[in-house]
Amino acid sequence: MKHRVGIVGATGAVGHELIRLLEERMFPTESLRLFASRRSVGKHTKFRGEKIPLEEASERIFSDLDLVIFSVPSSTSKVLAPFAVEAGCVVVDNTSAFRMDPKVPLVVPEINAHTLEEHNGIIANPNCTTVVALMGLYPLHKEFGLKRFFASTYQAVSGTGAAAIRELEAQTRAWVEGDPLFNDVYPHPIAFNLLPHVESLQESGYTKEEEKMLNEGRKILGLPELRVSTTCVRVPVFRCHAVAISAEFKRKVIVEQARSVISDFKGVEVIDDLENNQYPMPVNRSEVLECAVGRLRQDTALDNGLSLWVVGDQLWKGAALNAIQIAEELFERGLLRCPVG
Amino acid sequence: MKHRVGIVGATGAVGHELIRLLEERMFPTESLRLFASRRSVGKHTKFRGEKIPLEEASERIFSDLDLVIFSVPSSTSKVLAPFAVEAGCVVVDNTSAFRMDPKVPLVVPEINAHTLEEHNGIIANPNCTTVVALMGLYPLHKEFGLKRFFASTYQAVSGTGAAAIRELEAQTRAWVEGDPLFNDVYPHPIAFNLLPHVESLQESGYTKEEEKMLNEGRKILGLPELRVSTTCVRVPVFRCHAVAISAEFKRKVIVEQARSVISDFKGVEVIDDLENNQYPMPVNRSEVLECAVGRLRQDTALDNGLSLWVVGDQLWKGAALNAIQIAEELFERGLLRCPVG
Repeated sequence: MKHRVGIVGATGAVGHELIRLLEERMFPTESLRLFASRRSVGKHTKFRGEKIPLEEASERIFSDLDLVIFSVPSSTSKVLAPFAVEAGCVVVDNTSAFRMDPKVPLVVPEINAHTLEEHNGIIANPNCTTVVALMGLYPLHKEFGLKRFFASTYQAVSGTGAAAIRELEAQTRAWVEGDPLFNDVYPHPIAFNLLPHVESLQESGYTKEEEKMLNEGRKILGLPELRVSTTCVRVPVFRCHAVAISAEFKRKVIVEQARSVISDFKGVEVIDDLENNQYPMPVNRSEVLECAVGRLRQDTALDNGLSLWVVGDQLWKGAALNAIQIAEELFERGLLRCPVG
Repeated sequence: MKHRVGIVGATGAVGHELIRLLEERMFPTESLRLFASRRSVGKHTKFRGEKIPLEEASERIFSDLDLVIFSVPSSTSKVLAPFAVEAGCVVVDNTSAFRMDPKVPLVVPEINAHTLEEHNGIIANPNCTTVVALMGLYPLHKEFGLKRFFASTYQAVSGTGAAAIRELEAQTRAWVEGDPLFNDVYPHPIAFNLLPHVESLQESGYTKEEEKMLNEGRKILGLPELRVSTTCVRVPVFRCHAVAISAEFKRKVIVEQARSVISDFKGVEVIDDLENNQYPMPVNRSEVLECAVGRLRQDTALDNGLSLWVVGDQLWKGAALNAIQIAEELFERGLLRCPVG
């Protein structure tokens, strides 16, 4: 039983990883169609050694597809995804367009795959930073009962997309040449700088990205009372998001027990040996399937608290990998429409 | 009334700034002597247009000095500073050697200059990250009563010293050339990477740097019950430390009031207009006397809580400037021995 798969937004940083992981993880793909904006038409991308043409995304592309993965601006998803569902496709959407819709499951497969059973055509893939943080927090939550957490993020430019990667590259080269650093994607240079500004300001004073950690975290964990405070910061790193977390639990936390429940949790590794300079970093977690947790310690400002440092490849577990894992889970549960099989 | 000043550790990143600020701020300097390790002997550094020779630091250099500023490894301060005091000098020590000694004032002049009155020859200059964080927190504490805070740091390589600046430079050049990134100062590459590792591991599971925020914060603010949890992270930035903070207070916090008490506090600016892309960053706070606070908002995980983002030039307010300000304060209060005047 194989499926006809479409990727909308195939030329972006996440789109590229979707194609790669679809192939590497041998998702049962009958055929693959790739969609992007009009200016990509005429180009091709390789999949299983085959040249796949890039087609223009539109409302009329969905009729002969079973599964469509969207990785486009959320305004585009909002418009196109309903047409895909109407055409009988199952949609995995990487954007924020449907994440808070109560009829749409928001899924990290290791955490809440069961919510896929009630899908209505669209499944939302969560925010990258939220996924990375929750991969560290969820095993702790199961053991100790999460009450609230404080998170500060260190977010790579690839989270913004391919143009932001090029911008950091160009600024780095300009710096070496002694030339001025031009910026276009970000409002300020990102090379050798920090931007406490990921997405737009909301009424709360937090940014949209910061509010996602709260709202998506509550929905994924099924904890409507969870309290979360996040500061999101863009850093001059190409790939992998990192999150420093102080978390408070209902029950007493023993660090060794925390270490052990995280180690036992699928999709996460513990790398925690500071004395021997071992901890998760962007350079050792890029293109790795598992997120990693380090710096585990009893939190000095919380009762029943734990401090931790989580790093994950946000293009993979924070985006493309999690989307493919959702597709795999849908497949295994027989939740993909399957007219070809 | 002018003083005979000595700087021990004159060739380091902070030493360089000490000489510069001593001149720029027109500290009443009768004469300046510069000390470093033996390998610097024969070199000179300019001060007020004059070439000052570098001398080898030793126990016997202090007899004709009034004020000595130490910016050396703490083990060196521990050995040499008592000789300076014995010779009748007043010592401002940049290291951690004496900071927690109850007989040694640990001073951020804007916060606790009054503790200088009881000095016994040595005054400790606090940890750079702690100073930057407290410059944002102290005006809030006065208004609302600080109970605890959570801090994640984004620390520039110049905090480690001149060799670390050269390491980030060299790695950046190597990256552009496509060469491997060598590391010597840090255990891993710092270019395009994050190291959740600033100083050595302590029994608590926190690092020495992280514990300083707690211990020095309590001492400077005079709040022995203060709870603090910190994660210290080295980032690929040359200059300026940044700190993301969630702080809890005794009294209700109104964001506008918070903004106003910080604005009114000497030594801090508020830069907080995210909609117009205005916030503190390393690129706009390097070589600026004031620390800056932005991203002020009601904290969503705390009652009576506030989130903020503080950036300061850690070579200046975090080190050299604060040391010179301590010296200025000692001078104004007549607390420097003054045999020349």
